[in-house]
Amino acid sequence: MSLQKSSFLSSSQLSNSEVDQLFDRTRLFKEEFEKKGTLNHLIKTSDPVVALVFAEPSTRTRLSFQMACYRLGLKTITLDNPSVASLSKGETLSDTLRNVAAMMPDAMVTRFNEDSEAEATIANLGCPIINGGVGTKEHPTQALSDAYTILEHRGQVSGEKVLIVGDVLHSRVANSNLILLQKMGAEIAYCAPEEFIPQQELWKGVKSFSTLEEGVRWATVIMGLRVQRERHSQRGLGLSIAEYRERYRVGGDQLEIFDPKGILLHPGPVIRGVEFSDYVLNEPRCKVLDQVSAGVFVRAALVSFVLGLEVQKA
Amino acid sequence: MSLQKSSFLSSSQLSNSEVDQLFDRTRLFKEEFEKKGTLNHLIKTSDPVVALVFAEPSTRTRLSFQMACYRLGLKTITLDNPSVASLSKGETLSDTLRNVAAMMPDAMVTRFNEDSEAEATIANLGCPIINGGVGTKEHPTQALSDAYTILEHRGQVSGEKVLIVGDVLHSRVANSNLILLQKMGAEIAYCAPEEFIPQQELWKGVKSFSTLEEGVRWATVIMGLRVQRERHSQRGLGLSIAEYRERYRVGGDQLEIFDPKGILLHPGPVIRGVEFSDYVLNEPRCKVLDQVSAGVFVRAALVSFVLGLEVQKA
Amino acid sequence: MSLQKSSFLSSSQLSNSEVDQLFDRTRLFKEEFEKKGTLNHLIKTSDPVVALVFAEPSTRTRLSFQMACYRLGLKTITLDNPSVASLSKGETLSDTLRNVAAMMPDAMVTRFNEDSEAEATIANLGCPIINGGVGTKEHPTQALSDAYTILEHRGQVSGEKVLIVGDVLHSRVANSNLILLQKMGAEIAYCAPEEFIPQQELWKGVKSFSTLEEGVRWATVIMGLRVQRERHSQRGLGLSIAEYRERYRVGGDQLEIFDPKGILLHPGPVIRGVEFSDYVLNEPRCKVLDQVSAGVFVRAALVSFVLGLEVQKA
Repeated sequence: MSLQKSSFLSSSQLSNSEVDQLFDRTRLFKEEFEKKGTLNHLIKTSDPVVALVFAEPSTRTRLSFQMACYRLGLKTITLDNPSVASLSKGETLSDTLRNVAAMMPDAMVTRFNEDSEAEATIANLGCPIINGGVGTKEHPTQALSDAYTILEHRGQVSGEKVLIVGDVLHSRVANSNLILLQKMGAEIAYCAPEEFIPQQELWKGVKSFSTLEEGVRWATVIMGLRVQRERHSQRGLGLSIAEYRERYRVGGDQLEIFDPKGILLHPGPVIRGVEFSDYVLNEPRCKVLDQVSAGVFVRAALVSFVLGLEVQKA
Repeated sequence: MSLQKSSFLSSSQLSNSEVDQLFDRTRLFKEEFEKKGTLNHLIKTSDPVVALVFAEPSTRTRLSFQMACYRLGLKTITLDNPSVASLSKGETLSDTLRNVAAMMPDAMVTRFNEDSEAEATIANLGCPIINGGVGTKEHPTQALSDAYTILEHRGQVSGEKVLIVGDVLHSRVANSNLILLQKMGAEIAYCAPEEFIPQQELWKGVKSFSTLEEGVRWATVIMGLRVQRERHSQRGLGLSIAEYRERYRVGGDQLEIFDPKGILLHPGPVIRGVEFSDYVLNEPRCKVLDQVSAGVFVRAALVSFVLGLEVQKA
Repeated sequence: MSLQKSSFLSSSQLSNSEVDQLFDRTRLFKEEFEKKGTLNHLIKTSDPVVALVFAEPSTRTRLSFQMACYRLGLKTITLDNPSVASLSKGETLSDTLRNVAAMMPDAMVTRFNEDSEAEATIANLGCPIINGGVGTKEHPTQALSDAYTILEHRGQVSGEKVLIVGDVLHSRVANSNLILLQKMGAEIAYCAPEEFIPQQELWKGVKSFSTLEEGVRWATVIMGLRVQRERHSQRGLGLSIAEYRERYRVGGDQLEIFDPKGILLHPGPVIRGVEFSDYVLNEPRCKVLDQVSAGVFVRAALVSFVLGLEVQKA
């Protein structure tokens, strides 16, 4: 496994057989935990310390990594947004990262906004880095959680038709999913307002639907995205919220025409009534909380590979 | 014990014999810790993870639960007020709670302000919840700490005369204490300015004193309450701070007429000079720091019951 | 070792032989960790809990103590600046410290701004305190990290010529280093703008240089200090930033005339281009990240002495 003692920065880094290995371990962890409420019969360690450096706000990703580490018997130190004291004192993010690395954690999970200097820095810290989200570029562990959830509930990723709806332009989750799911054989399409159509090279030639209805009829998996107001700098959204809802919110009308065995995903946080209606969130096909649960075990599997932890026979 | 694998949301939930069981374990934990500086000869576990979700600011309750968990060999993940990133991104508190539950912690401690949706949500999360304070309604683990401190320093709760002074209307601590202490056989009275007289059904028929002097002469236990400015929305306090002090601050004058074997309690944080004078806080009858110490062991006992942890022979 | 079960508040508290003992253990920890990636063959414990109470912002000191504790197998509870809820509710810092102590941590690390009441309080908390920085007065664990780094890279402290450059007046690091390094036999000098010349008794008679060039020619160790804008209340800096750079920034010109075997230190965070140039930070003689690494092991050694932990044979 190429992940051992090395960084995991992008979905593009994993071969299909590596994804398989990772998901086999994820499945083992999840099933054993569901049976026994612990993983300590699988992993014998309590020494490694993982540093979680989150220079952008995060709830679920940070907690998910922390939970994953604790289930493996690891420790974590956390530097999060409000406490990044050194930044407010004039230190660059790159220097903060170098300082944390100098404390010799066994691995580091990082999240930060667009910062090309920091991106260059993490490539050379001498400690394995796991990308916990970088600006609008990538969020590869979310994509792994999503792919695992598709596999779990649809039986395969290959051949699935995944419709990504909403703010694709600003979504690191969409980028990481595009790379990973295409590699795993899924077909991707999107449906987005003019202002949110992705412009990156990556998205050239990706199918798109101009109406939600057409997209929903086509899809086996619908992936909502949060409208990320904090990233809409100059341009903003040309539509009013009412128009956005009218055209891009997934609600009861869409559920009726959607594949009865299809599933709905969303990386969270969901703004109820804007991206998905309350009705959708209560629907059995909606798997947003399963994504969260899967995320813990995907991250545990990933961290265990990165640290080179041995897994005992179950 | 009905607590096993189930939630603890209100003081009203415990029978007298369950309180006895809980306090027996609290006493065991406290005495063993004082003798040996550890509880690891009593509890053998290191796997469970307790999620602490504090959507309102907290110092002592959060730290106390954390300390209690660590003394039991448990781990904690914390989501606290300044880092509730998902809330600022538009997620409801209920959805945040559901997300944390989806990460499969073994139990969750929650604190939040009045939020009837969240109250409904925690009743159905599939993971035991411990109420760490909800709005102005209840704070049952504080009441348990207070009752234990009374028991420790007065020898019994039954027959004690507990005078609650100050902002009773906004105090979840007062509510939880009223329920618990009455059930345990104590007599409760209060002394409060007009604006802070409790209006809830719960308080109908509870004895009150119009002057602090009368109340103090009656009481064996005086319980001060913080003046909670952050909860005084429209009405505020009709009195000036000087008038409040003059009439409701417990100081040297009150100590002179108070039962020489009585005790003074306060859930903290204390605003020195407003609720209690400096002189009172230095008085041997004042047990506010004992409440804090007791709180760690009461919570450890509670968490150990909720998780169903077995206690070894000492 | 006088540190056992007692507080460590000032550099002045350690005799030279105690510093030797502390550094012997630091070296053992650092070398074993570098060989084996763990210290758990040296220390057998998992019970103690160390409370980290940081009432002023901190990144590296807090994380460094946390990492040190985790490498020893200890747990930590943290109360940091943004979450000091009790302070915002009107509790004094002294009362917050008493409350944390009442939760019976095995030791407490404190950081706070000038607060003579809090300084008196920590002397009587009944739990060993480690000074993690107090206002502009002392930061003794930083001085220990610096002294250890000098020892590591220069082979000795005695006889070294240490030039402290910049905001000496507001620097608790400078004070703690002056005390420690002089005791260990180093010669100290400083070079600072008029406004930053130290006024305390401690600094009377300490050599100073009016130009950076003269100082650099003399020194074997250059110690930069952060320009601490947040502490410049009334007076501020008379110089413009451009003038400050011109006269006090260590850059390529200084490196040319500096001892080729000399080293450069800075307690961090570094404001690049103001105190040190980018060029200096990339120079092999610059040891600022080594200071950070050393800091983890110095603090681990200190905490292990304070808690009276036994170290097994390696």
